[in-house]
Amino acid sequence: MSIFDERNLSMMMDLYEMTMSNGYHKEACGHDRATFDVFFRKVPDNGGYAIFAGLEQVVDFIEHMHFDEPDIEYFRSLGMFDEDFLEYLRTYRFKGDVWAMDEGTVIYPNEPIMTVTAPMIDAQMAETAILAQVNHQSLIATKARRIVRAAQGRAVSDFGARRAHNMDAAVYGARAAYIGGVVGTATVLAGQMFGIPVSGTMAHSWVMYFDSEYEAFRKYAEIYPDDTVLLIDTYDALRSGAPNAIRCAKEVLEPMGKRLKGVRLDSGDLAYLTKRIREMLDEAGLEDCRIIASNSLDEYSITSIIDQGAKIDSFGVGERLITAKSDPVFGAVYKIAAIEKDGIVRPTIKVSESVEKITNPGRKKVYRVYDGTGHAVCDLIALEDETVDLSQPFRVVDPVKPWKDTVLRDCTARELLHPVIRDGRRVLPPKSLTEIRDYVDRQLRDEIWEGEQRFENPHVHYMDMTPAYYDFKMDLLRKADDFSD
Amino acid sequence: MSIFDERNLSMMMDLYEMTMSNGYHKEACGHDRATFDVFFRKVPDNGGYAIFAGLEQVVDFIEHMHFDEPDIEYFRSLGMFDEDFLEYLRTYRFKGDVWAMDEGTVIYPNEPIMTVTAPMIDAQMAETAILAQVNHQSLIATKARRIVRAAQGRAVSDFGARRAHNMDAAVYGARAAYIGGVVGTATVLAGQMFGIPVSGTMAHSWVMYFDSEYEAFRKYAEIYPDDTVLLIDTYDALRSGAPNAIRCAKEVLEPMGKRLKGVRLDSGDLAYLTKRIREMLDEAGLEDCRIIASNSLDEYSITSIIDQGAKIDSFGVGERLITAKSDPVFGAVYKIAAIEKDGIVRPTIKVSESVEKITNPGRKKVYRVYDGTGHAVCDLIALEDETVDLSQPFRVVDPVKPWKDTVLRDCTARELLHPVIRDGRRVLPPKSLTEIRDYVDRQLRDEIWEGEQRFENPHVHYMDMTPAYYDFKMDLLRKADDFSD
Repeated sequence: MSIFDERNLSMMMDLYEMTMSNGYHKEACGHDRATFDVFFRKVPDNGGYAIFAGLEQVVDFIEHMHFDEPDIEYFRSLGMFDEDFLEYLRTYRFKGDVWAMDEGTVIYPNEPIMTVTAPMIDAQMAETAILAQVNHQSLIATKARRIVRAAQGRAVSDFGARRAHNMDAAVYGARAAYIGGVVGTATVLAGQMFGIPVSGTMAHSWVMYFDSEYEAFRKYAEIYPDDTVLLIDTYDALRSGAPNAIRCAKEVLEPMGKRLKGVRLDSGDLAYLTKRIREMLDEAGLEDCRIIASNSLDEYSITSIIDQGAKIDSFGVGERLITAKSDPVFGAVYKIAAIEKDGIVRPTIKVSESVEKITNPGRKKVYRVYDGTGHAVCDLIALEDETVDLSQPFRVVDPVKPWKDTVLRDCTARELLHPVIRDGRRVLPPKSLTEIRDYVDRQLRDEIWEGEQRFENPHVHYMDMTPAYYDFKMDLLRKADDFSD
Repeated sequence: MSIFDERNLSMMMDLYEMTMSNGYHKEACGHDRATFDVFFRKVPDNGGYAIFAGLEQVVDFIEHMHFDEPDIEYFRSLGMFDEDFLEYLRTYRFKGDVWAMDEGTVIYPNEPIMTVTAPMIDAQMAETAILAQVNHQSLIATKARRIVRAAQGRAVSDFGARRAHNMDAAVYGARAAYIGGVVGTATVLAGQMFGIPVSGTMAHSWVMYFDSEYEAFRKYAEIYPDDTVLLIDTYDALRSGAPNAIRCAKEVLEPMGKRLKGVRLDSGDLAYLTKRIREMLDEAGLEDCRIIASNSLDEYSITSIIDQGAKIDSFGVGERLITAKSDPVFGAVYKIAAIEKDGIVRPTIKVSESVEKITNPGRKKVYRVYDGTGHAVCDLIALEDETVDLSQPFRVVDPVKPWKDTVLRDCTARELLHPVIRDGRRVLPPKSLTEIRDYVDRQLRDEIWEGEQRFENPHVHYMDMTPAYYDFKMDLLRKADDFSD
């Protein structure tokens, strides 16, 4: 068994987490509790929504945080830390609470997708590992969904491992892509670790190894008669590849009572070539033979070749999916929202000259609000201890346009944040990848407006606040402004 | 100790490697040997050169390839493979030879940076892991070098872990960035695994935790008096952060006989702010206090703010380095160049309608050719068994302009490919990361023309062929053309 997923990743942190933690420990305030929110500010590719992914790995990471002797030795070698603190690390375990949205939730900017309430040191030490995991998987899940949407019902598979930013990126990227809606991956380790369907047939080298293309096809079909997919562009797809594939179907597979499952094309003008190849296959009575295309595809190129009438049943998508090439950064951040000293909770707000960088202070709830048709009309931020009762008309404030008078009527609300870790122990119920994937599908089919899903100028989802939360934030902002003067 | 680097990554492959290997095994031709070249076609960011990185991990991976019982069980569960083949996997070890350029070599498109000559199965099964590692690390090393160049001698550090494409991308990315010339990383695990210098001070949360910014600075300076770097933009860098840092230098550090080492700025107009902050520090007699800036930096933004007179001593670079945001794909490929059956080596060439996608066939040597000043004037591809003697004038062919009559005079040549694995065993001598990093530096300082290093329209390095190699390739192309007709 690969030990890929059994690593101790507690050292996956930025050094400042340790310099601060050592400081909190020295000041004997490491046990004061703080609340940090994980949120992001901008959807990649100027999209209208993102998909939250990576929660399972985050929970696993946090529950198992610890330091081994060589880790402590390494910290000692840096000559920056007190022996007391190093001793404390020896028995360190994460002792806080984590709340999070369900994995697969459609998410929007500027609202917490995850909240960590823990002793200062614990909260600080988990920062980088949480962000790297959530940023990476949410990036790829969101990108995958865009590509799946562009394919308009055709299957999309992940072929990206070789261009991924190393091994984790390939494997957790395949997981995230599956959450986003691809049907499978070529990456064996991802199939093994997560049960994702795997597929793969041949490379050009297989075709070049044999004395002729037909010979290569024949050998393959004899070995895999139930699953024969032939790569037809090693020499010339139209003049050689497709005719040889048809001959293989007729002379090798049909006598065995088998059908040619597919042909794959990895180069050239996919719109032009696949139309011609479809005709050739159909003329030969191979209407059920699928055409699989790959070659630097993403949502833009897929949209374009489908527009031009490409005859493609299935897309293999590589580098542009697995690196999210067109916009490869998911910018989730980890910002302090409250500090609890001596039992008193003090909300904190980070002011900034850029209005969009001002944080939402304090501990809070996030609701998704649905209208009578089940569509999500807005998200709603409320105070932690506030009761939001939508059985009556309920006024909300749009923080971007606070002068608007918005009243929610005949709406229902769903609270989005749930406990996943309590007192350092996992309480997140196990969920299969298929469940997460189906949840994504269901939201995008039933709940999320089409307008938010289009690629060009998507509708911006409303993020409203309860009047109580809005007043609370404004009050803090006024005080912060006084403070900085 | 983290077990990060002890994973069995043999399952890090595309499934087609196994379907083909099973086929070769069944055909009893899995022991025929093949030669695959690793090369790339285009420098990211339209740069003039790239840096080869990741070799150490590739060699380590190949030497340790094996399959454990659960791996074999997983393959069995797919229902595609013969029991014979699964049995063969049980004792599988890589049995071939690998040649490679030295890690850190400046590399150019279309010439082999690594060559695998091994039994078909062995050569095939290593493909994806080699590519993912080389693609990722070469991408980041190359990007890092661009950023280091833009900084014009100022220090650059990697702050990117949180935006990396997961954990390997953070850690191996830090390694590659160090090879490319950054002075250190914030990522603890990278420091621990590779001995890269680590740095880190405080987050905004540290400043917000205390009752005032000054209090936060004072506490920090008391704990780390020898290494006090203060984050000054939590509230207002000019009105609050810088004055409080200066006060801290005067009231806390100077009475201890210490100096304020630096201030860090993570937002705002870095050109404007750092000029003002430099004045404030200098006026207070803190000329030796360094200014460290971060905030979505890359070679373009660094060039621009330096042009505007920014006073920055050190850059912390995050997402745009660790994801190579502006062009996040390094497209190295793995293409078959020769097949050896019954002791006869047959060169193979992949033809394509795109001339730039035609491969260089056969087993070959690559030389870097230097003029009398020690500058690299071209790279030269020769037949494997050819002797290139530059002590006499030597005619070469530019394959892009074969009509040109180029003669090398007074030149010397260095062979670039060296054995790193023989018969499956590592022969690569151990090399420290510092050596690799110094090698990069030395080449770019002494050997590589400045014209190839500029960002805009860099000079394209010449890749020439010996007349014998050129004729050999043309001959194969003519035959391939006949074949496909």
